[in-house]
Amino acid sequence: MIARICLVALSIIIECTAVVNGADPLPSWNSGAAKDAIVTFVSKVTTEGSSDFIPISERIAVFDNDGTLWSEQPMYVQAFFVFDRIRTLAPQHPEWKDKEPYASVLKGDLKTVLSGGERALIEMVMATHSGMTSEQFEQIVRDWIATARHPKTGKLYTEMVYQPMLELLSYLRANEFKTYIVSGGGIEFMRPWVEAVYGIPPEQVIGSSIRTKFEVRDGVPQIVRLPELNFIDDKEGKPVGIQQHIGRRPVAAFGNSDGDLQMLQWTAAGSGQRFCMYVHHTDAEREFMYDRQSHVGKLDKGLDEAKTRGWTIVSMKDDWGRIFP
Amino acid sequence: MIARICLVALSIIIECTAVVNGADPLPSWNSGAAKDAIVTFVSKVTTEGSSDFIPISERIAVFDNDGTLWSEQPMYVQAFFVFDRIRTLAPQHPEWKDKEPYASVLKGDLKTVLSGGERALIEMVMATHSGMTSEQFEQIVRDWIATARHPKTGKLYTEMVYQPMLELLSYLRANEFKTYIVSGGGIEFMRPWVEAVYGIPPEQVIGSSIRTKFEVRDGVPQIVRLPELNFIDDKEGKPVGIQQHIGRRPVAAFGNSDGDLQMLQWTAAGSGQRFCMYVHHTDAEREFMYDRQSHVGKLDKGLDEAKTRGWTIVSMKDDWGRIFP
Repeated sequence: MIARICLVALSIIIECTAVVNGADPLPSWNSGAAKDAIVTFVSKVTTEGSSDFIPISERIAVFDNDGTLWSEQPMYVQAFFVFDRIRTLAPQHPEWKDKEPYASVLKGDLKTVLSGGERALIEMVMATHSGMTSEQFEQIVRDWIATARHPKTGKLYTEMVYQPMLELLSYLRANEFKTYIVSGGGIEFMRPWVEAVYGIPPEQVIGSSIRTKFEVRDGVPQIVRLPELNFIDDKEGKPVGIQQHIGRRPVAAFGNSDGDLQMLQWTAAGSGQRFCMYVHHTDAEREFMYDRQSHVGKLDKGLDEAKTRGWTIVSMKDDWGRIFP
Repeated sequence: MIARICLVALSIIIECTAVVNGADPLPSWNSGAAKDAIVTFVSKVTTEGSSDFIPISERIAVFDNDGTLWSEQPMYVQAFFVFDRIRTLAPQHPEWKDKEPYASVLKGDLKTVLSGGERALIEMVMATHSGMTSEQFEQIVRDWIATARHPKTGKLYTEMVYQPMLELLSYLRANEFKTYIVSGGGIEFMRPWVEAVYGIPPEQVIGSSIRTKFEVRDGVPQIVRLPELNFIDDKEGKPVGIQQHIGRRPVAAFGNSDGDLQMLQWTAAGSGQRFCMYVHHTDAEREFMYDRQSHVGKLDKGLDEAKTRGWTIVSMKDDWGRIFP
């Protein structure tokens, strides 16, 4: 106990030394307006005695995941997971051979699958994410994320996270912000790996969910996953999810699409200093280039509103010295 | 920044000194099996190198609120709040004069009100807890809890919290447990005051809720409370709420009624060391005496299961040297 406490104190002193030494906490960020805006905000709100000071308990920072912390092209990573689940489960579902959207997934005709839009995706999520216990599902996700690879880059998906955003998460936490994920993706699809990858614990993950129920099966208490929608944590759902889980309004919000706009609006509308940022995908060479016309991660209204309101817009091409770790 | 970090380090050293000095962290607990069981559990799971050691990130402790952290007799505190809201809102609802259960509330006939059971209570909650923004509701609760008094004792409700449980919360947090409330009560009814009273921040409160929606009204982004049920965090709902909000299984759970049984079962069924405790209301003189026959906070099946499984049962009369602060 004492030894551990001393270790904690020591780690605080080491962190403190880094701050005093003035080491750049955001080395993958190029100098410029975006980096300046981040550092200025953090330094303002953490300066005691300043009128802009924000108490530690209120330092809530929320991050979208797909397209903000990791790549979301050509499809959300969770969609690849769903397709792999459908292939794995197909022998138990002979009816899928003739039933859309499953038939097209099994034929590898992803264009037809995607033409079904959000509705088809939700149906497939419910079919493939239910019927097991919460612990079984966690293990399925762990096994998949450890080995599945991006179809274009051949990298593990967890290698396609953005290095500058990892640095930003660490920088905020070093300044005693509590960092949350607020994603349209499945809450239980993210929880098994985000702590190792982003340093964000499961209790700081907010996402979409299916219903579950508690029951005692053969004497063993279990949480069973049901094929029914519970909550969609996207667009207007994001502020609702934030209030449900956190009960405080964030002071900083980070997104990349119109699906994040309401979260940024809700954050910006609080009193005192606020920081809202959009990651703008402008780098066709090192990542992907898309915004107003994209089917995945469309950024249109949000881009206009960010410009009008003076939110920080990060150009991946210009503001990030490197993209992946 | 540096000054604050030093202060944190200093406070750690002070806490460390208290531990070394061996000051009793649970002074309102009488010596006996219950106190021993708590201290033994905490010391086992925090001893590094022990096979029972639990890493800090997994030290999740969940507490029921009504009857576990504060008094729930003769009615849940939130029911008194609901009745006061009905009286306040009555002028805007002339129809309530002739409509049950409102009519009986307005006549002060609480017996008839309560005969409507949970269903009547939920209807009244939805009618009185909706129609305003999340921030307006927070203010209503703050104003009420600051002044409303218990009909029998004349104390503020927040003075009717259990001193031994406050000490237990602090003791667990000093040992780096994260303490959560998991209550059948309304999540937004608790959040405005539990941080000051229990040291539990809003993001560590899980409770029942009504639906909300995000909208921009006259250019102002708001979360509006709707007269629709969202989630009942009671009985089978408690493990579901825990998984939804925390995403980890607790290692310690504290309750006082059959409504907490599933939460204790879920906690107990995890691997490694677990601690489950029931507060048994055995003190008619200093608080209230009730269990198997009570309409509020009934403890029947849970008491049997606790005995069978060897969970800790706290007799308020025998195990607590003092009850209220």
